Amino acid sequence: MPQNIHDLTTPALLIDRAALEHNLDTMSRALPGARLRPHVKAHKCSALARRQFERGHRGFTCATIRELEGLAAAGLGEDLLLANEIVDPRQTARIGRLLEQGARVLVAVDSAATIDAAATGGVREVLIDINVGLPRCGCAPEQAGGLAELARARGLEVRGVMGYEGHAVGIDDRAKREALCGDAMEKLASAHRAVGGDIVSAGGTGTFDCNAVASEIQAGSYALMDTAYAKLGLDFRQALFVWSTIVSVSDSYAVADCGLKSLGMDHGNPTIDDAAIWFCSDEHTTFAPAVSVEPGARIRVLPAHVDPTVAYHEAFHLVEGDAVIDRWPIDLRGW
Amino acid sequence: MPQNIHDLTTPALLIDRAALEHNLDTMSRALPGARLRPHVKAHKCSALARRQFERGHRGFTCATIRELEGLAAAGLGEDLLLANEIVDPRQTARIGRLLEQGARVLVAVDSAATIDAAATGGVREVLIDINVGLPRCGCAPEQAGGLAELARARGLEVRGVMGYEGHAVGIDDRAKREALCGDAMEKLASAHRAVGGDIVSAGGTGTFDCNAVASEIQAGSYALMDTAYAKLGLDFRQALFVWSTIVSVSDSYAVADCGLKSLGMDHGNPTIDDAAIWFCSDEHTTFAPAVSVEPGARIRVLPAHVDPTVAYHEAFHLVEGDAVIDRWPIDLRGW
Repeated sequence: MPQNIHDLTTPALLIDRAALEHNLDTMSRALPGARLRPHVKAHKCSALARRQFERGHRGFTCATIRELEGLAAAGLGEDLLLANEIVDPRQTARIGRLLEQGARVLVAVDSAATIDAAATGGVREVLIDINVGLPRCGCAPEQAGGLAELARARGLEVRGVMGYEGHAVGIDDRAKREALCGDAMEKLASAHRAVGGDIVSAGGTGTFDCNAVASEIQAGSYALMDTAYAKLGLDFRQALFVWSTIVSVSDSYAVADCGLKSLGMDHGNPTIDDAAIWFCSDEHTTFAPAVSVEPGARIRVLPAHVDPTVAYHEAFHLVEGDAVIDRWPIDLRGW
Repeated sequence: MPQNIHDLTTPALLIDRAALEHNLDTMSRALPGARLRPHVKAHKCSALARRQFERGHRGFTCATIRELEGLAAAGLGEDLLLANEIVDPRQTARIGRLLEQGARVLVAVDSAATIDAAATGGVREVLIDINVGLPRCGCAPEQAGGLAELARARGLEVRGVMGYEGHAVGIDDRAKREALCGDAMEKLASAHRAVGGDIVSAGGTGTFDCNAVASEIQAGSYALMDTAYAKLGLDFRQALFVWSTIVSVSDSYAVADCGLKSLGMDHGNPTIDDAAIWFCSDEHTTFAPAVSVEPGARIRVLPAHVDPTVAYHEAFHLVEGDAVIDRWPIDLRGW
């Protein structure tokens, strides 16, 4: 493993250790222990999950079965939530096998089909997933009680509800964000009354400090952050960078060796300090630097969206200044 | 390996065998043998490159050193071009090692720094990379002769020029596309006169049949295609699909299990037949189907941009109808 960031093959994902630790510590103070169920989809890295576990968060949220399997393989499977719908019993059987191996996995269901797949595949515990305003998975709040009954009739333990206010978490204006979150959580609370159980799972980095209904918050992006979440002015620091080499310099622009295959682009272009981004192509970012730059110089590029950026890379490099302290495989990728 | 597409874990990348073979055959008729130097960045798959090789295209274009290394390891390294700038001699030394192992690699240079890195790392043959209108890598045409002299003075063999008309390849209007390509190739021809050598490497899928200057065309997307290139009306068929399961259905929309981590998003949303796409999130695509759908149904999702879609996946599944004929690892990912 290279000892210095200038020895890394670029593009490379860097995590600034001080920023990461600030973020993990800040969140752990706000939401200690089981009040936070960190979402691993943002980092897909069991080594980073272990740092969250060591701070007292023993349960994790996952978006894929591969994430469940990877956490269990890393010894972090004592209290997992799959916050996603699985409708194929051959897939829920993968969860059944994890349970046989000693993991504990709670699975979201939102329909008769997902309840059937859960029961058939050997899942034991479920949450009823409620649509609280984001048009994605989740049943209507008024269907929740009936689905809970159906799940219990199929022998599943219904431990409560979940409902992700994804339409609220990214709103810059704090008052609007809080209002949208409040409306969403009213729906979730109403569904919870019909369902019962001890878990009300919801929330994200944008609502971690204003969601007063959830018993546990599923935040994930707070650990590494991105430029989209930075606009909210939360007390989390940018800890993730794409380390890149300037490979070509022209009169009016320069070209770095990171592009569409190392940066998630759905939130738009990345950011480079003291520079205007022109465009990204597969392996390049063309930008206009404010000061003169030379080929061979290395720069930090800030991703607009953490999750789909991380999913392109094999590993994080944990850094302190120019020193590379550790290499963490991004071992939870894929499906 | 599953024998039927309904047994695949989703999301999964499918290649329609008939469409792929049509595309490979059509291009091989238009540009036989060395007239085509297929770009592997679009598919990052040595098994697919082998199908191109078997059709007589023994040289390949690469965007990364990992692509060079992977092709060489697969026995496809007899005539490789790295159509990208490398300014770090520790990276060009990776190419030097490939040459010692018997591969042949031609490397693009566009500055004194990249020439120095090439010579220091053990590269033997270069092309002068010319900016023909796309603001990315490449020197100004009038600098080409001087750089060729510099390269020769450093002991490098200068085999010619390259210049990618990337600003032209995606223009829908054929007359405009041809005009832009023509202007770009005038610049490249002028640089070639100053540089010498037998190679003029340029072109892409959008200009493969109108570029009259290049001695070899670097097209890559034609093999698999995407919805952006489909707008050009070329005789290549959509061969790439993201195979997905519908995991949740509401009154007005449905949710498939592919999203920002299985689809390159820089060209916009994917396409689903008989449906309107609402939005993609990390592991989901929300869409309004024209006809009623059920949870558990599987659908083909058409990516907007092939290259950054492929880079998220571990393998292609070659299919004929519902039968899975082969699994091809996407072995050239990373850097």
